[in-house]
Amino acid sequence: MSLVLDSAAQDLLFREARTANSFSDEPVTEEQVQAIYDLVKYGPTAFNGTPLRITLVRSAEARERLVQHLAEGNQAKTLAAPLVAILSADNEFHEELPRLLPHFPQAKDLFFAERPAREQSSLVNASLQAAYFIVGVRAAGLAAGPMTGADFAGIQKEFLDDDHTPIMVVNIGKPGEDAWFPRSPRLSIDEVITTV
Amino acid sequence: MSLVLDSAAQDLLFREARTANSFSDEPVTEEQVQAIYDLVKYGPTAFNGTPLRITLVRSAEARERLVQHLAEGNQAKTLAAPLVAILSADNEFHEELPRLLPHFPQAKDLFFAERPAREQSSLVNASLQAAYFIVGVRAAGLAAGPMTGADFAGIQKEFLDDDHTPIMVVNIGKPGEDAWFPRSPRLSIDEVITTV
Repeated sequence: MSLVLDSAAQDLLFREARTANSFSDEPVTEEQVQAIYDLVKYGPTAFNGTPLRITLVRSAEARERLVQHLAEGNQAKTLAAPLVAILSADNEFHEELPRLLPHFPQAKDLFFAERPAREQSSLVNASLQAAYFIVGVRAAGLAAGPMTGADFAGIQKEFLDDDHTPIMVVNIGKPGEDAWFPRSPRLSIDEVITTV
Repeated sequence: MSLVLDSAAQDLLFREARTANSFSDEPVTEEQVQAIYDLVKYGPTAFNGTPLRITLVRSAEARERLVQHLAEGNQAKTLAAPLVAILSADNEFHEELPRLLPHFPQAKDLFFAERPAREQSSLVNASLQAAYFIVGVRAAGLAAGPMTGADFAGIQKEFLDDDHTPIMVVNIGKPGEDAWFPRSPRLSIDEVITTV
């Protein structure tokens, strides 16, 4: 009642959406990926830096290489998922700031001249965008299966470079049979929110 | 067309939603905060760890203390915002894992016995939840004004403790006059997504 978003959308994005562990055979199309990106690219980031980068692992050969770096419990479902995405943080995102932040191009040199400052900002803001992406996958009527049980150093070496830090791997598709565990508990609002 | 989410909801959450720099006087109620939390608490996090903590800065006295630690350009709008939230990452979130992850309580000791591993996980997952929170604020028909231009060490000392790392401050309310800059550009899909 206090929300403006209609309840079907609430269910689609949060209440009924679940982390899927199995998927149907239905493919995830390029059109769906394009529509997801065209929606979630508007999610806010610091200085509009948008450091998230996405590697879609479509070929069977690349999928085999990826699962070598995943926790054993994540391998079979990742091999079977219609689409798999490696989400990473671009630590050199500041190079694009003059174009992304035309009213304040000097932000690039004022705040991000040093690599550690860039890495910190990139990690936080790519994580924000990873969440927007998960919401976007759900907005397409698909289930996401985000995973952090992985050898990320191995994934970085195999698929990325020194400037891109992987933050999660996401399986994407229509949910299959017995796709999820029972919903785990959440903290009560009093455990999360305090007022001063 | 490739999305299931209706276009009014797309607009509300992403396409027409904007980072607000001014707000109306209309208050943000506890009922709205409760509704936002009850929606976005379901957003997925690693091991269901849900490390985000939220400090609502409601009193005038606390608001004055907060703005001392914000970049000068962020001070006036933060004093005037109907509600301000400090979002932080709980680096001791693992203490709740036996309750939050009842089917795998040993995750607490297997993966999070060491503080650096906890801090890294907490930062990424609290950032995911910060994005869910921003989406939730928009779902309530409110505008969010997330800010990272701040002395976070000062904010931590003033409002939090050594176990809670602030990641952003968010102004919340109905947008006021001239609430936003023109939309800044986004990267094209080919600059963000590659396929292997």
